[in-house]
Order: sequence, then C-alpha cells, then structure tokens
Amino acid sequence: MVGMRGAYGGGGGYSNGNESRPLGGAAAAAAPMTTTSAEIAGMAVHKVATPPPQSTASKMKARVKETFFPDDPFRAFKGQPLGTQWLMAVKYLFPILDWVPGYSFSLFKSDLVSGLTIASLAIPQGISYAKLASLPPIIGLYSSFVPPMVYAVLGSSRDLAVGPVSIASLVMGSMLRDAVSPTAEPLLFLQLAFTSTFFAGLVQASLGILRLGFIIDFLSKATLVGFMAGAAIIVSLQQLKALLGIVHFTTEMGLVPVMASVFHHTKEWSWQTILMGVCFLAFLLTARHVSMRWPRLFWVSACAPLASVIISTLLVFLFKAQNHGISIIGQLKCGLNRPSWDKLIFDTTYLGLTMKTGLITGILSLTEGIAVGRTFASLKDYQVDGNKEMMAIGLMNVVGSCTSCYVTTGAFSRSAVNHNAGCKTAMSNVVMALTVMVTLLFLMPLFVYTPNVVLGAIIIAAVIGLIDAPAVYQIWKMDKMDFLVCVCAFAGVIFISVQEGLAIAVGLSVFRVLMQITRPKMIIQGNIKGTDIYRDLHQYKEAQRVPGMLILAIEAPINFANSNYLNERIKRWIEEESSAHNKQTELHFIILDLSAVPAIDTSGIALLIDIKKAIEKRGLELVLVNPTGEVMEKIQRANEALNQFRSNCLYLTTGEAVASLSALAKMTKP
Amino acid sequence: MVGMRGAYGGGGGYSNGNESRPLGGAAAAAAPMTTTSAEIAGMAVHKVATPPPQSTASKMKARVKETFFPDDPFRAFKGQPLGTQWLMAVKYLFPILDWVPGYSFSLFKSDLVSGLTIASLAIPQGISYAKLASLPPIIGLYSSFVPPMVYAVLGSSRDLAVGPVSIASLVMGSMLRDAVSPTAEPLLFLQLAFTSTFFAGLVQASLGILRLGFIIDFLSKATLVGFMAGAAIIVSLQQLKALLGIVHFTTEMGLVPVMASVFHHTKEWSWQTILMGVCFLAFLLTARHVSMRWPRLFWVSACAPLASVIISTLLVFLFKAQNHGISIIGQLKCGLNRPSWDKLIFDTTYLGLTMKTGLITGILSLTEGIAVGRTFASLKDYQVDGNKEMMAIGLMNVVGSCTSCYVTTGAFSRSAVNHNAGCKTAMSNVVMALTVMVTLLFLMPLFVYTPNVVLGAIIIAAVIGLIDAPAVYQIWKMDKMDFLVCVCAFAGVIFISVQEGLAIAVGLSVFRVLMQITRPKMIIQGNIKGTDIYRDLHQYKEAQRVPGMLILAIEAPINFANSNYLNERIKRWIEEESSAHNKQTELHFIILDLSAVPAIDTSGIALLIDIKKAIEKRGLELVLVNPTGEVMEKIQRANEALNQFRSNCLYLTTGEAVASLSALAKMTKP
Repeated sequence: MVGMRGAYGGGGGYSNGNESRPLGGAAAAAAPMTTTSAEIAGMAVHKVATPPPQSTASKMKARVKETFFPDDPFRAFKGQPLGTQWLMAVKYLFPILDWVPGYSFSLFKSDLVSGLTIASLAIPQGISYAKLASLPPIIGLYSSFVPPMVYAVLGSSRDLAVGPVSIASLVMGSMLRDAVSPTAEPLLFLQLAFTSTFFAGLVQASLGILRLGFIIDFLSKATLVGFMAGAAIIVSLQQLKALLGIVHFTTEMGLVPVMASVFHHTKEWSWQTILMGVCFLAFLLTARHVSMRWPRLFWVSACAPLASVIISTLLVFLFKAQNHGISIIGQLKCGLNRPSWDKLIFDTTYLGLTMKTGLITGILSLTEGIAVGRTFASLKDYQVDGNKEMMAIGLMNVVGSCTSCYVTTGAFSRSAVNHNAGCKTAMSNVVMALTVMVTLLFLMPLFVYTPNVVLGAIIIAAVIGLIDAPAVYQIWKMDKMDFLVCVCAFAGVIFISVQEGLAIAVGLSVFRVLMQITRPKMIIQGNIKGTDIYRDLHQYKEAQRVPGMLILAIEAPINFANSNYLNERIKRWIEEESSAHNKQTELHFIILDLSAVPAIDTSGIALLIDIKKAIEKRGLELVLVNPTGEVMEKIQRANEALNQFRSNCLYLTTGEAVASLSALAKMTKP
Repeated sequence: MVGMRGAYGGGGGYSNGNESRPLGGAAAAAAPMTTTSAEIAGMAVHKVATPPPQSTASKMKARVKETFFPDDPFRAFKGQPLGTQWLMAVKYLFPILDWVPGYSFSLFKSDLVSGLTIASLAIPQGISYAKLASLPPIIGLYSSFVPPMVYAVLGSSRDLAVGPVSIASLVMGSMLRDAVSPTAEPLLFLQLAFTSTFFAGLVQASLGILRLGFIIDFLSKATLVGFMAGAAIIVSLQQLKALLGIVHFTTEMGLVPVMASVFHHTKEWSWQTILMGVCFLAFLLTARHVSMRWPRLFWVSACAPLASVIISTLLVFLFKAQNHGISIIGQLKCGLNRPSWDKLIFDTTYLGLTMKTGLITGILSLTEGIAVGRTFASLKDYQVDGNKEMMAIGLMNVVGSCTSCYVTTGAFSRSAVNHNAGCKTAMSNVVMALTVMVTLLFLMPLFVYTPNVVLGAIIIAAVIGLIDAPAVYQIWKMDKMDFLVCVCAFAGVIFISVQEGLAIAVGLSVFRVLMQITRPKMIIQGNIKGTDIYRDLHQYKEAQRVPGMLILAIEAPINFANSNYLNERIKRWIEEESSAHNKQTELHFIILDLSAVPAIDTSGIALLIDIKKAIEKRGLELVLVNPTGEVMEKIQRANEALNQFRSNCLYLTTGEAVASLSALAKMTKP
C-alpha cells in the first residue's frame, strides 16, 4: 500500500510556485476579505464557489431519483386530495379508464377499420411466425387473441398492434432448438416455449416495476439497425426450406450452413413449390412497394398476405397440389386458447435455458415494443411512459404464458399499418382480437390446404422491411464507430449466431463509451483575438496561444479509469510545450480548465495533487479554472487535509485567470 | 425500423421559431458575409467554427495513437540516424544497458547493502508464500532466484524487489485447490502451478506488447484498498492453522468456514505452538512498529523475519520441540532450480483452469508490480514505462515457469525496504538473487527444524501492512461511492471468495462510470451579476436567472445510453419552467450549453433534432452554445441532410447568445 499512501503523503508543496508570486495567496485562503494579488493588479476577480453543503443522504436521494425516476411519475399526484390520488393511481395502472369514458361511435368507426386491417395481417403472420419459432401454427393465432386484449386494458400507446413478432420468434426458436428437438419432443418444446414466455414477461414487468427500463437504452440505434438487418436475412434464409420445398433442411441458422444445406439438397427442390413461392413473393413485394410509394394505399400491402393465403389455398384445393410436392399446413383444431399454466415447467433441468431464453427474448421484444410506442406517440404528440409500458407488456406475456400464447409485443410493421389505417385508441387491438377469435372458432378448417410456401413468402415480405439501408447510410455518414458497431452486429448475427451477434454489438457499444472515459479528450485552448473567450486551437483558426501559458481543457469525469492516462498525457504536453516555448518565451503557468469535468473521484483528486507537485518541481505553477459543483466540493475536502489548492490557484474563468496571471508576471519582473 | 426513420424524417421544421424573428437566419447560413440579425442589433457575435476537415483514416490514426500510445514511445526515435535508432531500440528492450556502462563502486556499495537486506526478507517470505500457495517451500526460494535476475536485465524500475507475493500466492493456491488437491496429487498441482505461471507471464507480456496496459487501470484505488484488506484478513486466517497447531484444517478460504473450523478443532490446539507463535508475532509486529515510527531503523523490521527463523529454528533444535507438537518444515533438498518446461501441461482437461488462474494472478501481480514501480519512480523522479514494465514482468514469469518458479512480481513491502535501504539500481535484485543462490546451494539443511508457526507469524506480520486504514478513511471522506466500492471488495473477498470479491468491486466501479454516462449531470445556469459569466445556479448563489430564457448545460457525451434520459429530462424541465414562467414572464428561448459535451453519436444527433422539434411545437426556440469540435462536425453533417441547425441558432458563448436573443426579443416587441 506504499503506492497509495504516496499519493496523499508528502509535504505542503508550493515551494517553487511562490518564487514568482510575492503577494496574496495564503492570506486570501485564510481570510476571504483580504485583498488578493489580482485585486492589487487592478482587476475584478470572481471567486469559485463551493455548492451549499448537503448531507450524503440527501445527495443519495437526489441521485436515486435521477436514476430511477427521471420522469418524476408522482409529480401530478402532489397536492391532490387522497380520493383523487387513488383515482389517479387506478388510472395510471389501467390507462383504458382514460379513454373509455369519452369513447364515441366516430372513434369506433376508425378503430373498426384499422382493427380489421391489422387482423388481416395478423392471421397469416401469426401462423407464419409460430412456424418460425418451430411452434404449432395455431399458437401464433392464440397469441394474437389474448395478449391484444390484455394490452388494450393496460397499455398506454394508442397505435401499438400487439402480437407475435419475427425477431423474438426467431430467437426463441433457435435458443430452444439447441436443447430440445421440436419434432422429437413437441410437447416438451411447447412447454419450454410457454415457460420462456413466462420468464420474458416476468423480466419485462420487473424492469418496469424496478424502473430499470434504461437497460434497453444500451441497445443503441446502430446495434439495432445491424442486428435487425442480420436477423431479417437469417429469417429469410430459413424460409428457403419452404420456398424450395426442401424436406431435409439443416437445423442450424448461420448463413454458411444454411446455404450449404440448400445446395446439398438440390434434388429435393420442387419446381411446383418454387413457382408458387416466386409468384406469391413477387405479388407481396409489389404490394409492399405500392404501399410505400403511395402511403394512402396502405391497405394494399395490409391485405396482400391474407389475399395470398386465400388464393393459394384455393389453388391447392382446386388442383390437389398437395399431391404434387407442395406441403400444406394440414388439419388445425377449432377452439379458443386453452389454459396452459399447468404446462409451465420450473424443474432445474430446463430452468437455466428457459430463464436465459426469457431474458433475451423479453429484452428484445421489449425494445421493439417501446421503440414502436415512442415513435408513434411522438408522431401524434402524446406521452408514453416507458416503465409503465414495460409493466403492461410484461403482464401481457405472463398472462399469455398461462393461456397458450408465446412471446408477443408491439410489432413494427403492423403498428405502422394500424397507424396509417387511422386507429384512434387501443380498441383496434380489441377488434383485431375479436376477428382472430372468430377465425379460431369457425374458420380453422379453411387453412387445411394453405401451402407452407406462401407462409414463407409472407415472412420474407414482412422481414425485408427490417433491412433499413437509408439508416445504415446515415450512420455511415454520421459516425464511423457507430457504423462499425452496426456492421459487427450484422456480421455477428449472420455468421455466428443471433444472440452472440447481439452480445458483440452491445459489448462494442459499451466498450466505446468506456473508451471515451478511459481516453478522454483534452484540448489546448487559445484566446480569440479581441475577446476574453478561450477556445480549442484546432477548431478555431483565429484562436491564439497566450505566451508563457499552457491552457488545457479536460472533457470527461476524472476517475480511476483515466487518471493514469491524464497524468502521462499532461506531463508529456508540458514537456513538449516547455521545449517549444524555450525558444521563444518561457512557460510559466499551466491552466487546467475543469468546466467540462462533471465529476471526480479519489483517484482523480490524487491525480490533481500529483500533477501539481510535478508541475511545481519544474518551477511552473498550476491554476484550475471553473471546477463544477462536485469537483469543487472534493477539492475543498482535499484542502481540509492538505491545503493544496488555495483560492489563489482557483479562477472562475480562463479570461480572469490569464489576465490576473499576466499582471502578476509583469509586476514581479522588470 | 419505423421508429428509427422517424427520428430523421419529418419536414424542415422552424415553423414557430420564425414568427418572433423576422430577420437574418437562413441567409446567414448560406453566405457568411451577410449581416446577421444580431449584428443589426448592434453586437459583435462570434461564429462557431467547424474544425478543419480530416479524413476518417487520419482520425482513426489519431484515436489509435491516443488509445495505445499515449506516451508516444517513438518520440525520441524521430529524426535520429538508423544506427542510433537501433541502439535506442536495444536499450529500450534491455534497460540494463542504460545503467551498466556508468556503474560505479559507490553505487554498488548501496546496492549491496539493500540487496542483502531484501534477501534477509525474501528467504523467509519466499518459503512462507510458497506454503500459502500450497506449493513446496523450496519453490518460493527458486522464485526468488531466477526472476530477479531476469528483471534486472529487462526492468526499468530501480526500486522494485522481485519475488513471490502474498496475494498472487493466495489466489493461485485457492484457484488450483478447487480442482486438484495439493496433498493427494502434489506433482499435478505443481505442474498446474507452473502452467498457470506460464499463462500469467503470457498475459502480462501480451498486455504490454499489445499496449493494453490500461486494462489494469480498471482496478481503481478504492477497489484495491478494499481487496487488499480483505485478502490480508483471508491470508491471516489461513495462518491460524500454523499458529494454533491445528492438523485438520478446512480447505475453504472464507471467514465463516475458517472460523468454524478453528473452533471445531479446539482439541487440536497446541499450547506450545500457540506460545511460540504469539511470542514471535509480537516480536515481528514490534519490529514493524519501530521501523514505521523511525524510518531510519528500517533494517529492524527488514531483519526481524530472518532473525525469527534463526532463533526459532535454534529453539526447536535445542528443545527437540518437534516432539512436543510443534510442526517443522522438514528436509529440503540442496541445489538450484531445475528446468521445468517439461512440466507444463497444455492438455484440454486443465487448460481452462490454468488459463483462468494465469489471467487473474497475472493481472493482480501486474497491478501490484506496476503500482510499486510507479510509486517509487515518482518519489525518485524518473520515468517507468508501464507497457515496457509489463513486458519485463511477463517475460520474467514465462522464464520462471520454465525454471521451477511460480508467479512473481515486484512486492510492495520488500520494495519499500529496498528503497529505504538506499538501493540505486536493479543490481540490488542481483545481489538478492545471489544470496538466495548461496542459500539454495549450501544452507538448506539449516531449515529442517524451522517451525511452521514462525512462517505463519511472518506472513501475518507482512500482510498486516496491506490493511490501509488511513486510505479507507480518506476514501470515506472524499467519495461515498468509492467507499461503497471499497467495502464491497472487502466484504466480497472475506465472505464470498477472493476472485468474486474482486469481480464485484470491478463491476461496481465500471457500473458507476457507465451510470455517469447514462444519467449525465445537467445544470441550470444563471448570470453572475455585472458580468457575462453564466454558471450553475445551485453552486453560485449570486447567479441569477435570465428572464424568458432557460439555460441548460449538459455535462457528458450524448449517446445512445443517455439520449432517452436527456430527452425526457429536458422536456420535463421545459414543462416545469414554462408553468413557472407563465406567472411572471413568458419563456421564449431554451439555450443548451454544449461546452461540456465532448462527443455525440447518431442517437445524440437524433435527440437534438427531436428536442428542437418538440421545443418549436411549444412556440419556443432552441439555441445551441459552444459545440466542441466533434459535436460541431456532426451538427454540420446533420445540417447537410436537414438544415436543422442554421448558424442563427449556434452561438460561441452563452453571454453572446443571451445578449443577441434579448436584443431580438426587444426589437420584435413593442
């Protein structure tokens, strides 16, 4: 521990500095009313203030509030009578109470249209996404019935269209398939899916209740863009099985094994299936293009999937195509969701797997749901409370896991259709759910002849929208490091695995943030001529160095992670400057601008003391400018022990520091 | 991806803002020479400059340099002829060449004294620490012979005393014992120890070569203080076995199991052993106290361990105490280190274990070695190159692993003695190594009767110095969060395990840094009367709000991790301010001071655009002050696409912004 004591040890310093400064100093620190050297030099110098003392408890309270309650959800409750507070609390928990009392027929007309529109999307997509997760197709429909109803009661977004989504389906399927085969043990697989959904809901609700919603912020935009594009390609590749009619397909997900599998089984390719697939894919993509070109024709792409299902089913039925190599869904039982809480399994064999799957799918689907909610809320200018939404989505999934549903959330594509179709409230979800209910009760036999190839085409047409080329271009133009994160997420997903690609991208993003702290920016400032403004010499060509002074600004909190770097860097700069200065004027003062240092820890204070000593050993003087509240407080505390930083080396602005120091230098020299 | 596009989409904005500003604006952005509205108002307004364009490649190069070569090691090489460069490179790799040519007899006298002094410490400590790692005692002596010689050639510190250290011994022993029993399979255990040492050396050298030395900076001072205190207690507890003469001792390390084991085996306690242990412990602690009180008497504590060994060995020999319940070391073979490269095992069964052990002990011992080197270098005012040191320590351990040594580094306590004894160069390590060699060759039979209890007392007396109570008090006074980290490291080590305690503390430190980014500080600024200085209203009581304006300063890089928070927080502030202002004067302008924002990413730019739109929707105007180089560059790029931030909403200082906006407000209103 010698090293640690060393940083605090040592004498009171200040031996060299005093030589060039005969006046003031110590006296100013002791009695604030004494005239300081700068005042003698005829200038008004402002003192750096220490913020008013605050107890540790109240500081902690403030910090906890900013960390967990930045939106101050209890603000509206203040000063209200108890009854009103109760009513507000109930309304907070059940946002449906906000809009039901004022609900009108004209609102319902809009919601009916949008609800029917998203139902026509939800039915084929539900079946398709369930197959993507290796679940029975009917689970996809179940998941489009109960969760939307729950969300309509609990959710605060008016535009979210709730149901299964492609990415969560893909991830859940791939994670569970690693442990259990869906064909060999279908019941166990189903049980694991429900259990994972239960944990996903639990994770989501807990994040909301514990107000840890900011965790999803760590999935940066760049990460998501890359991840989603990669996932879209992985999902599309999986559809090659259905599109080409291959029977023996790989169970792996990566680009390489899938392509190998596709070209290894060329004999299994069925031309009838391929023909059908290509036709319907072309139809769906055309419909998508039309709707993107003319937004008022949104219903074209919204109805195309259902139309494809109906047409292809009719075709198969008429031509008995199932006997010509086209695989079909087969018999589906009529009836609504059965209770499934008895299917949840918590024994230790699969607990780790289901918890991990729940955690990852939970966070992924939450990210999608919250992002969708926020986007449309800002378009229509209403507020969505992130933590409240998490509780709603979480509870919806917990309920879903007990009623034969798997992970659901607000889907990007369907919510956009819902918004374009003019939805007004969450009632559109209820309309959709009721439509799905009618389908479940009466229309299931109609899906017997639906060919799998059309479901594949529907998935491809849906996920192709996840590849957001303009956003990638924007990221490339704006920030090359973000672009790297994006590419890593993309490459990780398609070449390694969905989870690891995501982990790599998140790790890289966090690493980048840590690097900003570990290697903080430091700039040399100069004076902008004719003003007392001091700015970056590199950025402002008109800024000029002040002779005899080195003005450095640090732009990061000073802490253990960067104090060694700052120490080396500052010393190197002083060395370079002294040798450069020697040729013209001598270097006298090192001015450290701390305006942009929001916080400092014990290592940081030790660094300041160490730097001061090193600078004084060279016969120079260290001056600190504008330490902010927390930093000033700690400097004060360090002063109590060592009195290193007296008030004559603390200035409020660089301008005042330079003026006062130049005056001093002139006074002491002929 | 709807959400992502939304952030960039939307029209050109600026609908509301223009109403209160009839002049300038768009024109100023197009032609810089046109008079701006502010100039009409009669003020000199400075423009925010964009830093000179730089290619991505040169930016990357600068960033790589700052990240990996902040000390610019090739600086001295520049402009030298090729021959000199070669010579300098050889000198860089072998610092011994720096001091050997000028080595004199007077220097040697100092080194001889200090070398003999640390040898008298190294011999008993070497034996003791090897026992701590469950290795044969002689390995401890071997490790005090070869590594110091290697370090003398490669190392650049003049004060480092190299050899086995307590913490690395403890951690290596505890990690390997989890997998293999040192009593049941002593040879395998030894092989694993050598292999771990090999990997530790490899990790250390790689960190140096890849210039990733900053990784050890993440072990903050607070973490280390807590960790070392905890480790000291764990190590001392382990010595209760020897001190009490217990035969059946637990193999666990935690406080609880050890105490349970101690009081479960009270029957095994041997009073002779306890008496001897207490006497020698008292002697050693007294010697330590004397040396701390009067630093000139450093040799008292330096020679006490060897004196204890000699006296206790004589006592045992004379009284045949080994027959009275005092356990002794037993026969040790004479002879120097045998080659052990054939003992390294790389088969997959133990590869994971040895690599993990090597990684953790490597980083821990590196941290100790570098910290010691830096401390004494700064005391004697010479430079130690961290990355170079890592290569030296790493190579020393790789060589050590091939010559029957286990992990070594520069020890805190012995280096302090070395320094106090007046060492001048690394020659003192050579003297020490030669003394150990003589011991190994001729004096081993003398250790037969050395009682284990004395070795226990020596370890306790050595590690007690790792408990640094004054540093803990300093940390408590300075920073409560650092104190929490310190306590967590301490409690984690003594209650859970050495490795997990360390992991918890490092995780907590990094989490804290991330939280500073995720929940950045924002302050409201006010004008300090009679100046154009704007400062934190909370810190400066004399600062006053500017009517009609809200001046916010953000103090962190704006990125994906905090853009949602900043969005919510700024909007909440504006809301609160507008309702507060309505009573007095109307709020017109939101001034965002970006001086302390060193970097911004794509999410951050999207945030600025979103905030601007939200503010304009309220009929207010957003003004940005002093964006730094990188931020200004990105704002410029965003402007190319959207032209959101024209030059009339960018100001160089808050003072100019306030003056110019007030003038405008007066001009447009009667």
